Amino acid sequence: MSERRLVMVPGPINYEPSVLRELAVSGLDHTSPEFVEIFADALGKLREIVYAGKEHQPVVIAGTGTLGMEASVTNFLTKGNRVLVVSNGYFGDRFKELLSRYPVKTDVLRPDTIGNGVEASRIIEVVEKEGYDLVTLTHVDTSTGVLQPIREVGKKLRNTGTILVVDGVCSVGGEEINLVEDGVDVLFTGSQKALGVPPGLAIIWLSPKALEKLKELKEPLSPYYMDLKKWVEVMRSYEEKKPVYFGTPAVNLVVALRKSLELILREGMENRVRRHMVLSEAFREAMKALGLGILASEKYTAHTITAVKLPSGIDAGLLVSFARSAGVAIARGLLKEVNYFRVGHMGPVNANDIIATIAVIERALYRQGYLSRLGDGLLRAQEVLARHGF
Amino acid sequence: MSERRLVMVPGPINYEPSVLRELAVSGLDHTSPEFVEIFADALGKLREIVYAGKEHQPVVIAGTGTLGMEASVTNFLTKGNRVLVVSNGYFGDRFKELLSRYPVKTDVLRPDTIGNGVEASRIIEVVEKEGYDLVTLTHVDTSTGVLQPIREVGKKLRNTGTILVVDGVCSVGGEEINLVEDGVDVLFTGSQKALGVPPGLAIIWLSPKALEKLKELKEPLSPYYMDLKKWVEVMRSYEEKKPVYFGTPAVNLVVALRKSLELILREGMENRVRRHMVLSEAFREAMKALGLGILASEKYTAHTITAVKLPSGIDAGLLVSFARSAGVAIARGLLKEVNYFRVGHMGPVNANDIIATIAVIERALYRQGYLSRLGDGLLRAQEVLARHGF
Repeated sequence: MSERRLVMVPGPINYEPSVLRELAVSGLDHTSPEFVEIFADALGKLREIVYAGKEHQPVVIAGTGTLGMEASVTNFLTKGNRVLVVSNGYFGDRFKELLSRYPVKTDVLRPDTIGNGVEASRIIEVVEKEGYDLVTLTHVDTSTGVLQPIREVGKKLRNTGTILVVDGVCSVGGEEINLVEDGVDVLFTGSQKALGVPPGLAIIWLSPKALEKLKELKEPLSPYYMDLKKWVEVMRSYEEKKPVYFGTPAVNLVVALRKSLELILREGMENRVRRHMVLSEAFREAMKALGLGILASEKYTAHTITAVKLPSGIDAGLLVSFARSAGVAIARGLLKEVNYFRVGHMGPVNANDIIATIAVIERALYRQGYLSRLGDGLLRAQEVLARHGF
Repeated sequence: MSERRLVMVPGPINYEPSVLRELAVSGLDHTSPEFVEIFADALGKLREIVYAGKEHQPVVIAGTGTLGMEASVTNFLTKGNRVLVVSNGYFGDRFKELLSRYPVKTDVLRPDTIGNGVEASRIIEVVEKEGYDLVTLTHVDTSTGVLQPIREVGKKLRNTGTILVVDGVCSVGGEEINLVEDGVDVLFTGSQKALGVPPGLAIIWLSPKALEKLKELKEPLSPYYMDLKKWVEVMRSYEEKKPVYFGTPAVNLVVALRKSLELILREGMENRVRRHMVLSEAFREAMKALGLGILASEKYTAHTITAVKLPSGIDAGLLVSFARSAGVAIARGLLKEVNYFRVGHMGPVNANDIIATIAVIERALYRQGYLSRLGDGLLRAQEVLARHGF
């Protein structure tokens, strides 16, 4: 395999080489003043990318997005609490599956059809009627490419006792999130998607309201390793340059995270979000020009990942394996009831990657006899890219 | 800071440069055939370093040793179960603290004095009398440098219903462990110590007995992310080259792990254990030649880490910060009731590192006025090294 392969699955991705080089840092232990500075800097930058203030606390723990998910709910729940899960796919449903291990009652709200999100008004209505202790939204569901808007719900819940947890695994660093304006209490993500760092870090942001709840809640359901009270203390100690110990931070990944955040802030979050919008538009439009449908409805389209529907005659497995053999890793669908494939376009993705990916998909469809000519997808993408000055 | 600094804390350590380079691997996603091969190879090698058979299952999860600890106990316990924790320090006590969050009853067995281990006969007697569902041993407690022998206890428990969990965080890859002969059911470690891989991986080995219990136990207490049933399925799927998804593996760390395991097996575990024995002996003897005491008693001395006692007049903080400023990172004690410092000597540590570390400690003690002349520690270490042909 050539290491130059394009990794267009919805995470892991193609990382910036400068970020990868940071992973090989030597001579650094978790309590050295140099690492303490780096970790503190990374935490500060984590606030910046989601427009959080000093009063928000980011937390970085060795683990995956799923660890982030479990920590994000269990720390704010106690026995008998009620949770509303808004699910637009596999990862929304994961909240439900996860919570079934805990002594809480969980209701699930789903869109009318796969590919839609749930109307904010519907969510608010149910929450007002039922008075949940915690509500979860999946900002972008990696299985469907559906983006669930946050702000309207967040504004409504902000001054209530309900904690709003947002799964930002497939969105943070690519989609617009403003912790304050969006009224998010707990946001979590993994490192290997739009944040552009190899997998192994779960990152969680806590609002002042969440921090208050953390302090007050008696007998939270969190496992020991996911005890955010302990982790918040550790993070604060690093920011105060007097590190305390709970578990050894994933030093090398944190150093790489700092580097990636530096690159993200140099680009600027607004530019970055716009880039994700333009590149995803080019990709979606190309797929449509090839006669394919997008799983996510227009109103709820994510910009970090696209799920593309295939006619029943086309074999998604064949398409994906041809693309891989041609040097572009894309992913099969996660839902069994739909014939589709998924393409991630996030982090340091660029127009070259998008063009090459569209080209491979065209050739794969041509081989399977679905297309009788090549070039329509590329042409459409070119038009979109040119229109946006790319 | 020079990245050539010696990292002689008890983990993180100085990694092999070839292992660090692997971290920067590009173009690899978690389902690519290339990564599947690498992960399967790493799992096979993980069996080899602890002399496990095909019937043992290693599991690699993104997280720290503490995650490994929580997964290792909660999957084998159900409400009302009884646990015996054998604790020789901070990390033994961590089992107790962790288990206090779960509906089980935990008893703790401690040595008569700090620095001792617990007699196997005493453990066996208590287990036979009380009939615990699970017993934990800390093979090497990083806080005290005490090694708790496993085999006698393991042989006794092997044919009983009791699950033997061993914390190998500060031992696997440096101390001798033979899963079969030692009768260990669940062994866990972190990547950043004697295994020689940057922090971020928890590794767990399960015996056939543990795998059976995993299958049979109704309502285990494990959190969702730590559900070993799910992870065992994932590991087996990678070994069968048909990966299933639960959480994204820490791809780059796993690639580095494979490399480090390759180096470990090339050296050979017997040679590796002997190297740890010789280097730790040289270090201990040097400390004694300087008039310092070793916290661990001779019978229970670890070979991966040494805790060195200081006379009350010597400031451990000053000693550690001088050493750091001189390019050797060593660690303060974790227990408050003893004036001591800790030195890790594990993984790819060599005689040069040991000599340089002893030299720095000599100079630090000389500066503080504790030593009136230099060289006694070095001379003693030289004699030990030369005697062993190093």
